[in-house]
Amino acid sequence: MFRKTFHPRSIEGRPSVPKTLVEAIDVSTSKAISLWLAETGHDQRDYELQALEPDQAEALSYLLTPESAEELLDTVSPHTAWRFLQKLDQARAAALLDTLDSDDAARIIELMDEQEKQEVLLAMEHAQSASVRGLLAWPEDTAGSRMRPDFLYVHPDSTVQKAVEVARVDPDDLEQGVFVTVLEKEGQRLVGWLSPAALVLGRRDQPVSTLMTPVSKVKQWALGPLDDQEHVARKLRDHDSGVVPVMDGDFLLGVLTDDTVSDIMNEEATEDAERQGGSAPLDIPYMQASPWLLWKKRAPWLLVLFVAEMYTGTVMKAFEDEIAALASLAFFIPLLIGTGGNVGTQITTTLIRTMAQDGVRLRDIGRVLGKELVTGILLAGTLAIAGAIRAWTLGVMWYVILTVTLSLAAIVLWSTLIASVLPLLLKKIGLDPAVVSGPMIATIVDGTGLMIYFLIAKALIPIL
Amino acid sequence: MFRKTFHPRSIEGRPSVPKTLVEAIDVSTSKAISLWLAETGHDQRDYELQALEPDQAEALSYLLTPESAEELLDTVSPHTAWRFLQKLDQARAAALLDTLDSDDAARIIELMDEQEKQEVLLAMEHAQSASVRGLLAWPEDTAGSRMRPDFLYVHPDSTVQKAVEVARVDPDDLEQGVFVTVLEKEGQRLVGWLSPAALVLGRRDQPVSTLMTPVSKVKQWALGPLDDQEHVARKLRDHDSGVVPVMDGDFLLGVLTDDTVSDIMNEEATEDAERQGGSAPLDIPYMQASPWLLWKKRAPWLLVLFVAEMYTGTVMKAFEDEIAALASLAFFIPLLIGTGGNVGTQITTTLIRTMAQDGVRLRDIGRVLGKELVTGILLAGTLAIAGAIRAWTLGVMWYVILTVTLSLAAIVLWSTLIASVLPLLLKKIGLDPAVVSGPMIATIVDGTGLMIYFLIAKALIPIL
Repeated sequence: MFRKTFHPRSIEGRPSVPKTLVEAIDVSTSKAISLWLAETGHDQRDYELQALEPDQAEALSYLLTPESAEELLDTVSPHTAWRFLQKLDQARAAALLDTLDSDDAARIIELMDEQEKQEVLLAMEHAQSASVRGLLAWPEDTAGSRMRPDFLYVHPDSTVQKAVEVARVDPDDLEQGVFVTVLEKEGQRLVGWLSPAALVLGRRDQPVSTLMTPVSKVKQWALGPLDDQEHVARKLRDHDSGVVPVMDGDFLLGVLTDDTVSDIMNEEATEDAERQGGSAPLDIPYMQASPWLLWKKRAPWLLVLFVAEMYTGTVMKAFEDEIAALASLAFFIPLLIGTGGNVGTQITTTLIRTMAQDGVRLRDIGRVLGKELVTGILLAGTLAIAGAIRAWTLGVMWYVILTVTLSLAAIVLWSTLIASVLPLLLKKIGLDPAVVSGPMIATIVDGTGLMIYFLIAKALIPIL
Repeated sequence: MFRKTFHPRSIEGRPSVPKTLVEAIDVSTSKAISLWLAETGHDQRDYELQALEPDQAEALSYLLTPESAEELLDTVSPHTAWRFLQKLDQARAAALLDTLDSDDAARIIELMDEQEKQEVLLAMEHAQSASVRGLLAWPEDTAGSRMRPDFLYVHPDSTVQKAVEVARVDPDDLEQGVFVTVLEKEGQRLVGWLSPAALVLGRRDQPVSTLMTPVSKVKQWALGPLDDQEHVARKLRDHDSGVVPVMDGDFLLGVLTDDTVSDIMNEEATEDAERQGGSAPLDIPYMQASPWLLWKKRAPWLLVLFVAEMYTGTVMKAFEDEIAALASLAFFIPLLIGTGGNVGTQITTTLIRTMAQDGVRLRDIGRVLGKELVTGILLAGTLAIAGAIRAWTLGVMWYVILTVTLSLAAIVLWSTLIASVLPLLLKKIGLDPAVVSGPMIATIVDGTGLMIYFLIAKALIPIL
């Protein structure tokens, strides 16, 4: 708190700065809520808002000004906002939703069940609910469902001065990097758009058409309304703008604002991480997921993997006589198949991350395979030596040592091959390579690795 | 290509639009390079630049204008830029580096070895090399090493008009959302900063001090020069600005621009993904990593996991008599420990992703454990039923079926406990929880899972 003493705007020392949301509600002034907001990060807000009792939530709803309501509901997760609104009566909930941009309101409303949704939309202001209904009509996770449908616009023959006046209507928009669009007429074809920088640098009497980014350029980073939101990341990597237009032909339907874009990128990265962990994406913040939901998302994949892994039992049963004849063979099973799984997991995670960022394409399959096979040979050598040492320390017979050493090398190479090819193959047939999770690779390598091990054992060990 | 026919700026139909970089080099005009740049995404540029032969690279270096050099080198990865510059003589390389912003130049130069670095810095323009040296002096991966040290500034008593004139010096800066800073004097304390929006909305004769974001606010999302770059993501979640100031007390040292910020967030997400896959971060793009580098990053973790997994052999040896007496016990080993690993991997990936986004804190450990244990009980029940069915179809004796069923339930719960607690524990003792990879959880569960299995078997099966 040392830094704060430097500047006159510090609010330290004032008696009434509430430390928590509950304290702010107890103070019972709108000012206290604003002070709390000013001092609190987004995660903290989310956390404290979740924890409110229904009567505290109701008290809060009366203390929120339109500005602080927008600030609060816009910075917590849609789930947290939704659960907060559930604690209020419908008229209050609708009034708070009216303070938000329609895309932010839609994100919260889409979580409600059909009846709740219809009721709250009826209670909302007409323009806002019409706008929200329009957004909810697009399929989930499309650019259309996430865009902001209202935007500032001027005509191509307007001056910079006129565009500035239009922008003054909602200064927050411009702060968020929202562009002023240039349309032929309201609801007509897009002609170009004006960045805040263009407005700064242009002369006030200059026509906007001389400063705007022409529609041909804008289209290069536009999405269609039905495009999957995951394409956003790729569009942005090629352009400096943080705002993505949603266009249908030459018509502008809306824009994905700066913060929507970063929300989307975050959501997509989380989904990929969850898939990579061998689970279906949760779609809601982890801390708000019930055990029942977690079970629903995890159990199907666990059962798929379980069924796939059952194959290992069949392999083991086929070699029952060998295991009975030489129990020490079994000692190495977890080590061999575990190592195979680890080698494969290392490859798929790197490869899938690179593919998600467009860094590897199908035509690179030769380069990827070449690189991974050479690495695989180096790793196979390394681990074979480690395996030989381990087998020797367990005091097993020399032919078991030899079997373990060769099997490790073979399993590492086999796992390398599977893990390098599978993600690219999945992409080729149009599936999301992110489903090739570590657990899936481990499962595939377990059964086949056992076969490799027992076949080598049978070939090398005289008593089998 | 339908869309392009709509607008007059289309370059289709002109005979000379090169389809590839090599074609553009063959055309041998600067214009051809610019046309290629205009039509090509960042990944494509990276790909084609990597593929150039030394003589093509040299030819290209003479065709690049300062603008196209900056555009090209700034949008490919620093590694690709570095390898391209290595194909040129020093004077050309230095001239191209002079066209970049100093932070972008530093990102490329830091990849060179000490001698290359000194030589190219000597060949560069003095102001640029001084600036780059300043950046290279900060430790790697700190905010100081990634910031842009030059920024636009005005005095607090200047007018908006004056600020606009300052901004005109480098319009690109403003396009990238770089703010105009307000300083007491050159090199003096920061007083505030002016967003492009503030410059648009203010009257031209208004003093900037009435429009600026005061330093007290700016400090809330500032980083210190020695702060780890990974803090950037957290700072940005709490603020709408895409630009992060780097401050030492009241002094502004530089800014992390929009694109640096998104590069950093990308790098950090890639590092986390690589760690989660049980490997050390590569630090360079995958497609440019040699097998030797891949081996160096992967082998140490594989050996650590191998040594940890060796414990399974010791457990198996301890139960050698039981396996020899009842070989069918061994059938289920891969299935049991594989499932335990899968359950744990699902939990750690979700948990670590949530922790990376600050969504789970140490004080939540009780909530996390409660949620996961209830989920674990549901999953244990589900998998125990699946296990009983599987054991029954393998035709083993009823007490083996019972052993497998109970062991599966116990292993799932054990894995749940380990995977929920370990990441939070690591964070508590100050380590990066992302090192708790899927392979690590699987390894921990393998050995302990075997013990659970054999102990249950000994207790239940009369002949052991």
